[in-house]
Amino acid sequence: MAEYFTIRWLEGGVVRMIDQRRIPHEIVYLDYTDPTLLAQAIRDMVIRGAPALGAAGSYGLALAAVHSQARNTGDLLKELQATAEILRSARPTAVNLSWGIDRTLNRAMDPELKSVATIQEAVLEEALAIAEEDAQTNRQIGMNGQALIPERANIIHHCNTGTLATVDYGTALGVIRAAHEAGKQIHVYVDETRPRLQGARLTAWELQQLGIPHTVIADGASGHFMRIGKVDLCLVGCDRIAADGDTANKVGTYNLALAAYAHQIPFYVVGPTSTVDLSIPSGDFIHIEERPEQEVTHINDIQITPVGTKAANPAFDITPAKYIAAIITEKGVIRPPYEENLRKAIGRK
Amino acid sequence: MAEYFTIRWLEGGVVRMIDQRRIPHEIVYLDYTDPTLLAQAIRDMVIRGAPALGAAGSYGLALAAVHSQARNTGDLLKELQATAEILRSARPTAVNLSWGIDRTLNRAMDPELKSVATIQEAVLEEALAIAEEDAQTNRQIGMNGQALIPERANIIHHCNTGTLATVDYGTALGVIRAAHEAGKQIHVYVDETRPRLQGARLTAWELQQLGIPHTVIADGASGHFMRIGKVDLCLVGCDRIAADGDTANKVGTYNLALAAYAHQIPFYVVGPTSTVDLSIPSGDFIHIEERPEQEVTHINDIQITPVGTKAANPAFDITPAKYIAAIITEKGVIRPPYEENLRKAIGRK
Repeated sequence: MAEYFTIRWLEGGVVRMIDQRRIPHEIVYLDYTDPTLLAQAIRDMVIRGAPALGAAGSYGLALAAVHSQARNTGDLLKELQATAEILRSARPTAVNLSWGIDRTLNRAMDPELKSVATIQEAVLEEALAIAEEDAQTNRQIGMNGQALIPERANIIHHCNTGTLATVDYGTALGVIRAAHEAGKQIHVYVDETRPRLQGARLTAWELQQLGIPHTVIADGASGHFMRIGKVDLCLVGCDRIAADGDTANKVGTYNLALAAYAHQIPFYVVGPTSTVDLSIPSGDFIHIEERPEQEVTHINDIQITPVGTKAANPAFDITPAKYIAAIITEKGVIRPPYEENLRKAIGRK
Repeated sequence: MAEYFTIRWLEGGVVRMIDQRRIPHEIVYLDYTDPTLLAQAIRDMVIRGAPALGAAGSYGLALAAVHSQARNTGDLLKELQATAEILRSARPTAVNLSWGIDRTLNRAMDPELKSVATIQEAVLEEALAIAEEDAQTNRQIGMNGQALIPERANIIHHCNTGTLATVDYGTALGVIRAAHEAGKQIHVYVDETRPRLQGARLTAWELQQLGIPHTVIADGASGHFMRIGKVDLCLVGCDRIAADGDTANKVGTYNLALAAYAHQIPFYVVGPTSTVDLSIPSGDFIHIEERPEQEVTHINDIQITPVGTKAANPAFDITPAKYIAAIITEKGVIRPPYEENLRKAIGRK
């Protein structure tokens, strides 16, 4: 297995990230010291994946803190707040980005911290803790989820939810990995995941590294494989889960959920409880990021549509809770009714 | 509007076809005199679209007939039968290809035809008649279908079903065209239609030529636009319709039908009655062509997956009749129960 990592903090105040736009053809790491450039990298999808964005947002604040020239705590906190807004606006749908930023900002604003140096130290500690916890959380999610995977299961997976979408191990792909490590001889149908092809590029690459059998398919082919009896379950990640269980995830997730529902195939959403946003009552209130048309009209910088063709590119869609068999988290497998059971799980230590 | 045509017979025994693999970037016509090379062109998708394949198969036999060196009718008929099998095997799912071939072959075998020259003439006449009838049939389909399209409708369309998929005018796109010509101010969401991108490349190009407003979307985004109330109906073509109404069409059609069904949005299949195959009781008996993996792993000859990644590439899927609101044909709009009403329509003069 090739060694690779998604995001790491280096001595001297540098954030190093693998450039996910170039996988699988090139393995290149990029270094950031300026949080504004890091925000641009988030927008450009050098890094993506909800849990990875939580760590990236927090590390972005750590960069702002450690490189700050502020002479007093008030100036430093103002700088951190300004940086937080720049980072937050880079990807509006993923709650984890805001979650990582807010948690780090709250730590910085602890009134116990009386000097610039102590705030700088606390911010960095918090960022490192978020990254470390994410890796642990994902291993726990994997353990919780793999119990649901039958021997020799055929699984459809959408987008990328592996190590590359997280700090380590992955969420939905972490469940797949845990089932594979438990010797279950699974096979994964990899939705290629247009427009950005995270499945064809990133998930196929990670499954290849892990030695897990897999077959890439066009997103539109999932119903066909269900109809001919080749699919046992679906596993997807999540970018934001509303209080009622409605889930925002990569566009195409909803179509997959509808196909699974029509075939009575279990459709599981997988993610850390930090993805749950109890302040949002339902999916109708989740803002859907619209990304550039070129992601649809071009592939690898080559135009596929006629010149001048308009395209729409919602990055996410909402899967209503009724289509979700369970939400697999580090705090256990959450079943309907979600309104009640999500609140319980989040309250749980 | 640019002038273009899909397939034409030229004086001297030449079939000229637009190379659909190069649209929209280049408009190139290829000439064929050898039916084996024409069969290869069908396999390679220089020409595609069920009704267009009917004409192509028939023209292939016409090439064999007019260029034959046979000295007696027995030898000529043997040659035509051998050519028919080569042409038929080029695309196994589309019934129209076989339909065009069989109709032309039957004409050739008319015992009234007593000389090589009369058979040659009859085969060419039959091919020209099939092409001419296809264009007329499609205009009739357009008229029949456009009555179902509301003013200012937002329509999702899958694959390509325009002039390029037929001899002229198109089927599902013909309905769209007829509604546009009737002044209905419609807008089309164009499913890009992975893996071969017939929507992004061909349908967008044809709609641009026709001046019909449209927006290209990833196939996985259709459910999203339905959920937010932006879609009034879906229109798709068909490659083979079983006696019970189950329909084989371009892969991704079934996922679109499931999404439409979940939103109670009418899902219409559009095609000539020559697409109905009463010898096949249901979709379970329709053979699904598996095409090369490279259509999924590569786009424009550029590999998108890791090297060595396996892909599956069913070219078609089956949409069960229960998800189809109506089948729009030249003989009228056919509603459920299809078992009964398809037979009635086909019997109708």
